[in-house]
Amino acid sequence: MARESAGESVLRRHMRVLESFDAWHPFLTLSEIAEASGLAVSTAHRLVAALEGEGLLERLPDRTYRLGVRLWEFASRTPGAVGLREIARPWLGAVHERVREHAQVGVLSGRDVLYIDRVSTRDAVVNATLVGGRIPLHASSSGLVLLAHADATLVDDVIAHGLRTYTERTIRSGPELRAHLRKVRDEGFAVTDGHIHPESRGIAVAVTGPGGSVYAAIGVVVPNDGVSPHPYVELLRRAAVGITHDLAVAYRPDVDERTHGIRSLVRGSRRSIEYLESLDADPHDAPLPGCSRHDDRPADAAVVTSPRGAASPGPCR
Amino acid sequence: MARESAGESVLRRHMRVLESFDAWHPFLTLSEIAEASGLAVSTAHRLVAALEGEGLLERLPDRTYRLGVRLWEFASRTPGAVGLREIARPWLGAVHERVREHAQVGVLSGRDVLYIDRVSTRDAVVNATLVGGRIPLHASSSGLVLLAHADATLVDDVIAHGLRTYTERTIRSGPELRAHLRKVRDEGFAVTDGHIHPESRGIAVAVTGPGGSVYAAIGVVVPNDGVSPHPYVELLRRAAVGITHDLAVAYRPDVDERTHGIRSLVRGSRRSIEYLESLDADPHDAPLPGCSRHDDRPADAAVVTSPRGAASPGPCR
Repeated sequence: MARESAGESVLRRHMRVLESFDAWHPFLTLSEIAEASGLAVSTAHRLVAALEGEGLLERLPDRTYRLGVRLWEFASRTPGAVGLREIARPWLGAVHERVREHAQVGVLSGRDVLYIDRVSTRDAVVNATLVGGRIPLHASSSGLVLLAHADATLVDDVIAHGLRTYTERTIRSGPELRAHLRKVRDEGFAVTDGHIHPESRGIAVAVTGPGGSVYAAIGVVVPNDGVSPHPYVELLRRAAVGITHDLAVAYRPDVDERTHGIRSLVRGSRRSIEYLESLDADPHDAPLPGCSRHDDRPADAAVVTSPRGAASPGPCR
Repeated sequence: MARESAGESVLRRHMRVLESFDAWHPFLTLSEIAEASGLAVSTAHRLVAALEGEGLLERLPDRTYRLGVRLWEFASRTPGAVGLREIARPWLGAVHERVREHAQVGVLSGRDVLYIDRVSTRDAVVNATLVGGRIPLHASSSGLVLLAHADATLVDDVIAHGLRTYTERTIRSGPELRAHLRKVRDEGFAVTDGHIHPESRGIAVAVTGPGGSVYAAIGVVVPNDGVSPHPYVELLRRAAVGITHDLAVAYRPDVDERTHGIRSLVRGSRRSIEYLESLDADPHDAPLPGCSRHDDRPADAAVVTSPRGAASPGPCR
């Protein structure tokens, strides 16, 4: 059943193809892509070929497709996801070390929390979140924290779109949601007892970004046993303060303009970072590592090889 | 200096915009994007707006742009990057635990190694690789392993495009490269002593995938001290065998078709995975978590919210 409409942009159609893949369906045939994306097979075929040409899709020997590593390569340069994840990881690990269940970091994305990272014990309680997965804002403790500090129009939007019910404890009305959000703002944390699964409880606090606004939420999912949430909240608050501090260091504007933000994206030894920064300090002397270069080109004409082997203007400048 | 050409596809132009960002330049203004991508400012403006609308770019309060978390969300579903990374991580950690320098995993991408993951000690030796970064195949031990098992036409292609020189030890001629590749195939590992930095040495072996072909390379970067590489090689070989085994388990075709590949993308507690799999077993009974749903829609019409808040056909099926 093709759902494509004539006025739809090429970008939207490409996105539809990419959106066909999820954690449950990481490998799809062309006809499955057409079905999942609601595109005619001929249209899907054309779009898939173009996406494959750019390395955004990969065709396997059995003729199924999967999302390509080129997407991951772009993702590795996202300050809001990988940057945050790299910075938050030690703090998340410290929380998990104490709690021994699930500790996770999420960001606002549309009307959902998008989970950027999670540390879990193998025998931990049920947790519906996936790394790279979404939960509606109203249903999750991280979501309530993010929504409590978001624009008021988003609250209206979330309510207007309907509040999906997971358990009898899930917030299910606009007034109930607004009351919860006021409580979160007053107390500085959110607790959801059995809102997604009866056995599980979410507790989350806000993480402030370098600009002073709420940047992310950090939370735990623990057994829904009714004990005081305050020890968890204190632990999460300390981690949130640490992440805020480390975000500010990574993105501080007083360091050399050239390396603005790089520390958030680059892990490695001190000597490696010094080496990499020294290369970038004078790109005409030494190009960035990782940039294939034609030997016969002038030193400032660095090119990077595309996933399909064609030289293309790339990240080497 | 606009480099755009009339026959270029819309997708290629979108890619050019995304390719403007790198680890050194994670934040760019519109005019910087236009300059880096070689597009006219008016063209760049239009493309940036479309990409922002899909969440692939994000505009910050200071009017700079960064790559959007939506890219990371797609990336979290790539078996070839995140799937491999999740599976390789414990083995990489075990190698690093013994070596205490750098341990890394890379895949073939064009004429480069694309590094998927790395574990480094803070005081480790200089290492030019970044997670998400590239090194030309001929220069790196992981690259030599991947090239030694790749199609012969790729070797020709790499030589034809020129072999960039990093140090006096870098492989710099076609015959020298071909001799090295034969040695790698004969011995089953690659060693590069000071090929990228005089103080550093790379040692790598191949990782076989579920289909029996070379899937990735795993390697270490250690001080270039001339000791026998064999203890490192043995350690890496054991890790490679472990990764091959775990890849086969994650993608084994004998498990329920519905969960094909999911274990490679989902980390979490056993109970969470059982819960998530039980939801998917009958999607008409219970939708996937993370899928916002209109309350007034039939239960099989799940929608996911897009990053800009518009309901869109998404990963929930």
